[in-house]
Amino acid sequence: MKKSVRETFRVGADADLSAIDSKGRPIGPRDKAAAAEAVRDLGMRLDALQEALTAEASGGGPRSVLLVLQGMDTAGKGGVVRHVAGLVNPQGLAIASFKEPTAEELARDFLWRIRERVPRPGQIGVFDRSHYEDVLVARVDRLVPEEVWRARYDAINAFEAELDSQGVTIVKCMLHISPEKQAERLLERLDDPAKRWKYNPHDVDTRLKWPQYMQAYTDALRFCSTDAAPWYVIPSDRKWYRNWAVAALLAETLTAMGPRFPEPDFDLEAEKARVKAAVV
Amino acid sequence: MKKSVRETFRVGADADLSAIDSKGRPIGPRDKAAAAEAVRDLGMRLDALQEALTAEASGGGPRSVLLVLQGMDTAGKGGVVRHVAGLVNPQGLAIASFKEPTAEELARDFLWRIRERVPRPGQIGVFDRSHYEDVLVARVDRLVPEEVWRARYDAINAFEAELDSQGVTIVKCMLHISPEKQAERLLERLDDPAKRWKYNPHDVDTRLKWPQYMQAYTDALRFCSTDAAPWYVIPSDRKWYRNWAVAALLAETLTAMGPRFPEPDFDLEAEKARVKAAVV
Repeated sequence: MKKSVRETFRVGADADLSAIDSKGRPIGPRDKAAAAEAVRDLGMRLDALQEALTAEASGGGPRSVLLVLQGMDTAGKGGVVRHVAGLVNPQGLAIASFKEPTAEELARDFLWRIRERVPRPGQIGVFDRSHYEDVLVARVDRLVPEEVWRARYDAINAFEAELDSQGVTIVKCMLHISPEKQAERLLERLDDPAKRWKYNPHDVDTRLKWPQYMQAYTDALRFCSTDAAPWYVIPSDRKWYRNWAVAALLAETLTAMGPRFPEPDFDLEAEKARVKAAVV
Repeated sequence: MKKSVRETFRVGADADLSAIDSKGRPIGPRDKAAAAEAVRDLGMRLDALQEALTAEASGGGPRSVLLVLQGMDTAGKGGVVRHVAGLVNPQGLAIASFKEPTAEELARDFLWRIRERVPRPGQIGVFDRSHYEDVLVARVDRLVPEEVWRARYDAINAFEAELDSQGVTIVKCMLHISPEKQAERLLERLDDPAKRWKYNPHDVDTRLKWPQYMQAYTDALRFCSTDAAPWYVIPSDRKWYRNWAVAALLAETLTAMGPRFPEPDFDLEAEKARVKAAVV
């Protein structure tokens, strides 16, 4: 039987990034033109599904979607926001970027700033980086002692299970690129005056810790890919494939949720008569 | 000389809604197909301009844009958010919907909740309804005494001048529809199961006060169309024309602002060498 998009990209307790080809195309379109056409279709599906999700919430439904994006610099978190989140009505989006925590944020539990940005019913939330930074950069750069970051995997699983039980469907994507592709993209940023502002010299420092980051990512994938909040690894060396894959994952997830337009809480015929009688 | 989009739609101290044809097409495309093509081009322009605005802000620039949308129910505020704001990168958007004020909001100055949602540098903010509700519904439904709403025009002008001086370019659009078109759209909402959730029986009560609303709109347009924050009246009986007009207005405004990519604050050649040397 044919695998679904979710089954294809899902990883679990045995996640192994070195075994996943960042240039791979295990399912879906084989080239850029086919992907462009597929993304157009997905855009229409996503738009309709999101509208139904918004409508459902307007009738009191609790459900929402949260797309979590993680990946090394230049992996394409911003590109997915632009090209995938950009497919739906921006009114229904809640995009949150998590940068280095502020002093106020550091003074609180690491999930505090995350809870603040959980999507409300009807919304599609997008996290550009997330609470996973607290077991990635926090671990690699030893921002906290090991016992602190080690305890966070369980805290994250409990948090995500809580969200799931409240109606938040979580879709976590690790945008997987090769270090060679990163070097290429960093040089592109430097070469193009319109991209130069995205370059941060600090990215090179992070790049030099690639193996440590892959280890930290692997543990995050292994310990925190639950049924309530699965991790997907998206081959991201090809931008068009990455965008298609995330859009397809989102569409499949929303289709499975099956959001429904609410029944009207008014008398339809009486309202038609009222509108017709309201001559101005 | 040919009028610009801004000149065409701008109103001033002599604003007269009864003299503006809500089906009018005083400039731009004559039919839906031409508008679709024009909007595609505008989308590419807006996307590039927004990217430059974001980049400029990343270099410390203070500037942003605030699109204020007002109009009677079904005039198309939501449609403009979807089809015009939807043309740009959602990451750079800050959309705020102002519904009936909460108890907390009512306890404060009417501009308090508005200030909270002013776009930050680099953002394109969109207000779906705004502080103008406080001189529209507040006036028509006598939610506050006359001396209170009368004082608000000056307060609004002072507030908007302050925003302008801080770098917020304000574009205010009144989406102008005829009462006949509204009746048609309300009935459409009732007829289509996928649109029914947008129907609110209260809209008919508001509809019955159409003349009072037009008077309140006229005063808002006359008293608050300043050079710092001009009002534009957009003929909105045709959805495709309305969307084109707002997109064109926004593109013209952003083009006039001329956002610029910042100069890098690092040594370009040194960084290229660092990236090349960072073999992983």
